[in-house]
Amino acid sequence: MPMIVALAGGVGGAKLADGLAALLGRDLAVVVNTADDFDHMGLRVSPDVDTVMYTLAGIANPETGWGIAGESWNFLDQAARFGGPAWFRLGDRDLATHVLRTERLRRGERPTVIAADMCRALGIEAAILPMSDAPVRTIVQTAGGPLAFQDYFVGRHCEVAVTGFVFEGAERATPSGEVCGVLASQALAAIIVCPSNPFVSVDPILAVPGMRDLLRARRVPVVAVSPIIGGAAVKGPAAKMMGELGLEVSTRSIAAHYRGLAHGLVIDMADAALAPAIEGMGMAVRIVPTLMRSVADRRALAQACLDFAAALGRR
Amino acid sequence: MPMIVALAGGVGGAKLADGLAALLGRDLAVVVNTADDFDHMGLRVSPDVDTVMYTLAGIANPETGWGIAGESWNFLDQAARFGGPAWFRLGDRDLATHVLRTERLRRGERPTVIAADMCRALGIEAAILPMSDAPVRTIVQTAGGPLAFQDYFVGRHCEVAVTGFVFEGAERATPSGEVCGVLASQALAAIIVCPSNPFVSVDPILAVPGMRDLLRARRVPVVAVSPIIGGAAVKGPAAKMMGELGLEVSTRSIAAHYRGLAHGLVIDMADAALAPAIEGMGMAVRIVPTLMRSVADRRALAQACLDFAAALGRR
Repeated sequence: MPMIVALAGGVGGAKLADGLAALLGRDLAVVVNTADDFDHMGLRVSPDVDTVMYTLAGIANPETGWGIAGESWNFLDQAARFGGPAWFRLGDRDLATHVLRTERLRRGERPTVIAADMCRALGIEAAILPMSDAPVRTIVQTAGGPLAFQDYFVGRHCEVAVTGFVFEGAERATPSGEVCGVLASQALAAIIVCPSNPFVSVDPILAVPGMRDLLRARRVPVVAVSPIIGGAAVKGPAAKMMGELGLEVSTRSIAAHYRGLAHGLVIDMADAALAPAIEGMGMAVRIVPTLMRSVADRRALAQACLDFAAALGRR
Repeated sequence: MPMIVALAGGVGGAKLADGLAALLGRDLAVVVNTADDFDHMGLRVSPDVDTVMYTLAGIANPETGWGIAGESWNFLDQAARFGGPAWFRLGDRDLATHVLRTERLRRGERPTVIAADMCRALGIEAAILPMSDAPVRTIVQTAGGPLAFQDYFVGRHCEVAVTGFVFEGAERATPSGEVCGVLASQALAAIIVCPSNPFVSVDPILAVPGMRDLLRARRVPVVAVSPIIGGAAVKGPAAKMMGELGLEVSTRSIAAHYRGLAHGLVIDMADAALAPAIEGMGMAVRIVPTLMRSVADRRALAQACLDFAAALGRR
């Protein structure tokens, strides 16, 4: 069976990954951003890996996109009573992931192995692969100085204006053996860049030394899905960041961002008028509904990506 | 104000400590066994300190004696789904204690300071003092070999027969500065040994080098409360252990155990007939109801201990 590799960050990326997983099962590998990871109350939290994992396991909270459905908050409530931090919402069930992961990391186990075991326990067939077993941390640069990613994203609700991003530790990181394995696989048929934030979800993956070369080495089609629809982000700060970075808040900027990596860009029908400009950049375009409101939407967008990749063929 | 020091282990000791705290407030210091402490899922759990803390804070589970009232178990349920251990019942609220404690211990903070901060947050006026900041671990010796305490106590429900106990690390431990401080205080008026298990709750405290000397140095009355009523333990394996160790399962064995430490023993009315024998060992006896079913019972027994100690006077 041909194998597909998807690159994904958090909520939006997880939804398309879920659609792909429904179509592909074990023939899908999702390489996930880990530069949002941080240590909180002594526990290693890996938000994007967990969001993809919970989404593919069918236990994600449908309202928030992150966390577990039907979650309780008694740990957090009691921790706050002790003066502990409550700004990052650790649910009681979610906490099991962080406690068990942290214990195993302290024993010297690799994040990739831990994630694989957890996915197996949750009945996930697709491989969910942290982009690297080495720590990479997104630092958000602002006029007021650098901020750790979660301080910016959760602590300050993305309110401060960004001036740039640094992926601390990236220079010492390498793709895991598992990531190298799926990207070097003879079965690899296409690479899908999910509609995740290009700056803080996809760029950290691409910042791991060797990753870009691995993505291009097999000459399979690379299809990106724009996270911008009609000049706005579906969720999260992608559009706000584009404005602050002086970019046009448009799918055209997404095309420019992925030029040299993606052969084709999937854009929403709301942005159909931009297709000629994007094609003018040397990138193929497919115009489909990209907003994923339902599980059926996820599958439909996933199928559109696979069809587009098949049409693009080897590059 | 005169100050009272109580020695306590888990549930039974916590009840009397609670009665003493109601009468004495900040003039009570409870020195608590930490030899039941263990690391579970990478978290430091300190069961006796927590039981005393939750009891004095008024949030203890009244059915079990341990844990927090109205607890939820979603963490444990999810952890079990990941294949995590479920034999030790970590509740969602209780977990806040372990997570926050573990984080601070890893930063190099002392158990005594952490417990003091948590008690303050819970509105506890009495001082709850871990017996030592150094690790001491009860090893239960059995015909089948040694067992870590929680493996014996929770994992095997105390079902295997004990042949003895070792307090691993005790030889390298010292009482904390805070424990030394309260026992050396000019205000110290009496020492109460709570009705905790003498072998695995009180003996570990006494095994800390220097502790016995500190308890006797000020020549204040030492009053012990028997955990055995009518040949049975109120809760826990004390009576079963006595039988397995070849001791008479009786308050008389408790008197023998504490000879040389306690000047007086508080026994239940069910054991009134044993008073002459105990007095024959050179120990004063006070006969009162010792079963603590209600909060009023706790206070009444606490008052009886204080009255008894006052009657005994300096030794």
